[in-house]
Amino acid sequence: MRGAEALVGSLVEAGVDVCFMNPGTSEMHFVQALDSVPEMRGVLTLFEGVATGAADAHARITGRAAAVLLHLGPGLGNGLANLHNARRARTPVLLVVGAHATDHVRHDAPLQSDITALAQTVSGWVHTSGDVRDVADDAMRALAATTEHGGQVATLVLPADVSWSEGGALAPALPATPPVPPVPSRVTAAAAAVREPGAVILLGGPALGVAAMDAAGRIAAATGARLLVETFPRRWDTGAGRPRVDKLAYFAEEAIAQLEKASSLVLAGARSPVSFFGYPGVPGDLVPEGCPVVGLADPASDVTATLEALAAEVAPDAVAEPAPRHAPEPPPGPLDVRSMCAAVAATLPDDAIVVDESLTAAGVLAPALQTAAPHTQLALTGGAIGQGPPTAVGAAIAAPDRPVVAVQADGSALYTLQALWTQAREQLDVTTVIINNSAYAILRVELARTGAGEAAHSGRAGRMLTLADPTPDFVALATGYGVPARRVETTEDLLEALRWARSEPGPHLVEAIVPALG
Amino acid sequence: MRGAEALVGSLVEAGVDVCFMNPGTSEMHFVQALDSVPEMRGVLTLFEGVATGAADAHARITGRAAAVLLHLGPGLGNGLANLHNARRARTPVLLVVGAHATDHVRHDAPLQSDITALAQTVSGWVHTSGDVRDVADDAMRALAATTEHGGQVATLVLPADVSWSEGGALAPALPATPPVPPVPSRVTAAAAAVREPGAVILLGGPALGVAAMDAAGRIAAATGARLLVETFPRRWDTGAGRPRVDKLAYFAEEAIAQLEKASSLVLAGARSPVSFFGYPGVPGDLVPEGCPVVGLADPASDVTATLEALAAEVAPDAVAEPAPRHAPEPPPGPLDVRSMCAAVAATLPDDAIVVDESLTAAGVLAPALQTAAPHTQLALTGGAIGQGPPTAVGAAIAAPDRPVVAVQADGSALYTLQALWTQAREQLDVTTVIINNSAYAILRVELARTGAGEAAHSGRAGRMLTLADPTPDFVALATGYGVPARRVETTEDLLEALRWARSEPGPHLVEAIVPALG
Repeated sequence: MRGAEALVGSLVEAGVDVCFMNPGTSEMHFVQALDSVPEMRGVLTLFEGVATGAADAHARITGRAAAVLLHLGPGLGNGLANLHNARRARTPVLLVVGAHATDHVRHDAPLQSDITALAQTVSGWVHTSGDVRDVADDAMRALAATTEHGGQVATLVLPADVSWSEGGALAPALPATPPVPPVPSRVTAAAAAVREPGAVILLGGPALGVAAMDAAGRIAAATGARLLVETFPRRWDTGAGRPRVDKLAYFAEEAIAQLEKASSLVLAGARSPVSFFGYPGVPGDLVPEGCPVVGLADPASDVTATLEALAAEVAPDAVAEPAPRHAPEPPPGPLDVRSMCAAVAATLPDDAIVVDESLTAAGVLAPALQTAAPHTQLALTGGAIGQGPPTAVGAAIAAPDRPVVAVQADGSALYTLQALWTQAREQLDVTTVIINNSAYAILRVELARTGAGEAAHSGRAGRMLTLADPTPDFVALATGYGVPARRVETTEDLLEALRWARSEPGPHLVEAIVPALG
Repeated sequence: MRGAEALVGSLVEAGVDVCFMNPGTSEMHFVQALDSVPEMRGVLTLFEGVATGAADAHARITGRAAAVLLHLGPGLGNGLANLHNARRARTPVLLVVGAHATDHVRHDAPLQSDITALAQTVSGWVHTSGDVRDVADDAMRALAATTEHGGQVATLVLPADVSWSEGGALAPALPATPPVPPVPSRVTAAAAAVREPGAVILLGGPALGVAAMDAAGRIAAATGARLLVETFPRRWDTGAGRPRVDKLAYFAEEAIAQLEKASSLVLAGARSPVSFFGYPGVPGDLVPEGCPVVGLADPASDVTATLEALAAEVAPDAVAEPAPRHAPEPPPGPLDVRSMCAAVAATLPDDAIVVDESLTAAGVLAPALQTAAPHTQLALTGGAIGQGPPTAVGAAIAAPDRPVVAVQADGSALYTLQALWTQAREQLDVTTVIINNSAYAILRVELARTGAGEAAHSGRAGRMLTLADPTPDFVALATGYGVPARRVETTEDLLEALRWARSEPGPHLVEAIVPALG
C-alpha cells in the first residue's frame, strides 16, 4: 500500500479517527487515502488556525490526540498560534505537515522553507519521515510522543514521495507515557501546608476534572484551604454541584491581592503563577514574598490521584461543598456585559461545553457560570487569540451529544472566524455569542495603563484599538459562512435568540451589542 | 524620549512612514508613539497576515521598505505565510515584533515563545534590541539590512521595556546596499547566447519594470530571442504598449514544453526554473537536458542596467515591438473563466495595479491582460495562498492615485479576507473580483493527477476539495467587513458591476459565479 494509506490506516488502528485538515498539493495522497480508509473522518477547514485549534479542543475533551494535516511551511505558519495554545495546554496533538518530495528539496522551489525549525517552536517531538517503509512506524512514534511530559504536540513531516510511494505497511501502536504517579513525600509536605491556616491550593492543568475538583473540594472543606483555578484552564469541570472555586485574576495587581495573605501556595497541576505580561514596577512573580511554594503535582503528573491521596490523608470523611444552582434571570433592557453574562449563565444547558474567549468580559462571566448548570470550560491557555471559534469546532466534534456555547470577544473572533464555515458544514451544535463592543477593549485597558489615558479612546493611537469605522457586522459574516445569525441589543432579545439557537440543530451565532467595559 | 518614540521617529526620518500593524499589550508604547510622531501612518489590520502581505505589496510598489508591527511569537506566526511570499519576492520588509519585557522572559509566561527561531525562517537579519539607548540604531541597521541580497525581511525583536523606557535617541539612516552592477563578462556571454537562434531569456525578480522590459523587448526584436517571464513575478509592468511576453507555465509538463526547443536559457533576474511541486516521474529541473544556462544577472543585481547593457551590445538600434491594445468585449451570457477574464481586461483602467491570485484562472487571465491597458501586476511569489487581499491593501496605500484590481480565487481569499475591513477603513480604491467556483479547483486538478480520477469530485477525498456545502457567500462576507459587494452570474452583470465599482470611491467586491475549469 501507499505510504499515505499505511499512515492513515495505522492512525485509525491506534484510535486516531479524526483529522482536521487544510491540505495542498503535497498532501493529495493523504487526502486520497480517506477513500480507502473510511474510518478516518476528515474535517476540512478554510484556514490552518482552525484545524490546529480544533485539534487542541478535541484532545482536551476526549483525552486522546487528534490528527492535523497541514501544507508545508506556510500552512504550518498559519496554524502556529493555536499550536502555541496547545503547547501551553500540554494537549496531545499529532501534527502531520506535508513537504516537498525528498528529491525536490534541492530545487528550493517557491514553497520550500524550514518546516523543522517552525515545528520545533511548538512541538516536543519533530521528525521527517525518510522512507515509505518507515512512515507508519514514524507515525506511531509521533503518537506515543504526544503523551510525553503530560501531553505535547508531536510533528511528523511527511514528504510527498513518502506519501505517494508503494511499500508502506501498517504499524502497531506504541505504549503511551503514563502520568507520574503521586509522590508520597510531596503529599506529606502538602498535607502539612494545608493544615496551616491561610493555605492556598492553585489547581491547573489536568487537575480540573470532576474527580480532581471533588478531591480538592473535600480538602478545602476539611482544612479551610482556599482553592484557586489558574487563569486560563485547559479544561475545567465546573458549575452548580461542583466545588465553588475562583479563578486567579488576569491582571497582576488583582492576582497579587488574591494571593497576598497566603501562608503557603500548593501547586496541583498548575505552574507557579506569573504575570501574563511584564509592566514597569510590577513584579512578574505573583507569589508573595516569603510565601512557601509546595509543589504537590506538576502538570505531567497524575494530579487527580495525587489530590485524592492528599484528600485521603487530610480529609478522609469530608464532603466537598457544592456550588448552589443559582442563575437569576438577567435584568431586562439594553445589554451590558453583566446582563449578557447572566443571560448565558441562566440559559446554559446541562453538561454544556463553554468555550471562553471572552477576554474583558471574563471577570464577569466566570462568577456567573459558577452557579450555572454543570459544564466544562475550555480557555485560552497560551494567550494567542483566535482560539475560540476553532475550539468550538473541535469540542463539538469530540462530544456530539454535548451542546457547545462559545462566549467570544469580537476582535479575537476575527482571527479565525472561518471556523464558522466548518461548524456549518459539519452541522455542529455550537452557539456562539459574540461580544461586539467594537474595540480591542483589552488593549484600551492596557494602553490606559501605560499612562496614555484618554489617548486610548481617541487620536491616532486610539484608532489602532477601535474596531469601529467600520464596525464588523457579525450577522453578515456568519451568514457568509453559512451560520444562521441574529443581532441583539437587549436582554430580552438575547434570551429569545439563545432559545432560537437551541431550538434547531446546527450552529448559530448571536451578536450581542454591548458597551465596552471601563 | 521613550524607546518606542526614538524608534518610530528614526523610521520616519529614514523615509519609512507607513506601519501595518496588529499590536498587543507589549506594543502599546509603539502605538502610543503614533500620537507623538504623527508622520508615521499606522494602518490597523484584523489579522497579522494582512499586515505582512500589505507591507510586501507596499514595498513592491514603492521600492522602499514598509514597517510591520506584530505581537510576540503567535502574532509573528500568523504573519509568516505572507512573509514567506515576501522572502521569495526579495521584498524589503522591516518587521518589528514586540516581545516580553527583558526581565519577564525568565518567567516563561503564557505568551513566551522562540520569536527568533520563527523570524529566522523568513528573515535575512534578526536582532533583539537589548537596551533603550540602542533601539533606534538597531532599527536603522534593520532598515539597511532590508536592502541586502536584492531585498529581504529584517526583523527587530522589541522587548516591551526597551520600548517603554526613557533614554532613547533618534538615529540616522545607514546607507542602503546597492544592487550588483552589470558584469561585463556575463553580458558578453549572454550576447553570444542570444545571437544564436532559439535562445530564451527568462525575466524575473527586479527585471520586470518598464525600462527593463523595454530593453528585453529590444533584445528580442533584434535577435529573435524569445522572452518569458517567471511564473509568479513580484512586480511586472505589462499590458498594451509594452513588449508582449508569455509567462512560464505553472504545471511542469507545460513549462517543459515551453522550454524544450531552447538553444540556451539566459537568466535575467530570474532563478533557473524548477517545478513548483515534485511529481512522480516528472523532472524538478525544468531546463531541457543539454541546454546551457547563462546567468546574466541574478535577483540581487541591477538587472535593468544589465539588460540595457546587453541591449546596447546586441540591439543598439532596435525598437521593442509593443503589444497592441486589444481588449475585445467579452461574449454575453453566463459567465465562465474566459468571459470573466475578458471582462476584467476590457474594463481595466489605465495604470491600474492588478493583484493576481487567480490560480486556476491565471492561464486565461495572463494572455487577456497582455493587450489590456498598461498596468502593473503583482503575483503570488511564494505560493503561500491568502496573499491577494492583503496585497491589494498595500498596493492601494502605496499608490493612492492608481486603481487596484484584484482577481482573486475563492479558496485563497478566505485565508486573509479580513483585509477587506482595512480596505473599508482606509477607503482604498480596490475592486476585488472573486472567482467563486466553490472549490479548491487547483487541488482537484492535483488530486486527479495522482490518478484518483473521479474521486476528485466525489467521495470522502473529494469532499476535502470542495467549498460547497455550504458555499461561502462573498457578498455577505464583504458586507460584514464594510465593503459594498454584488454577485454576478453573467457577463453583462459583471461589466455593470465593474462600472459600479469604478463609479464611486472606496473598495468594492464583485463575486463572479463561474464553473470550475476542467
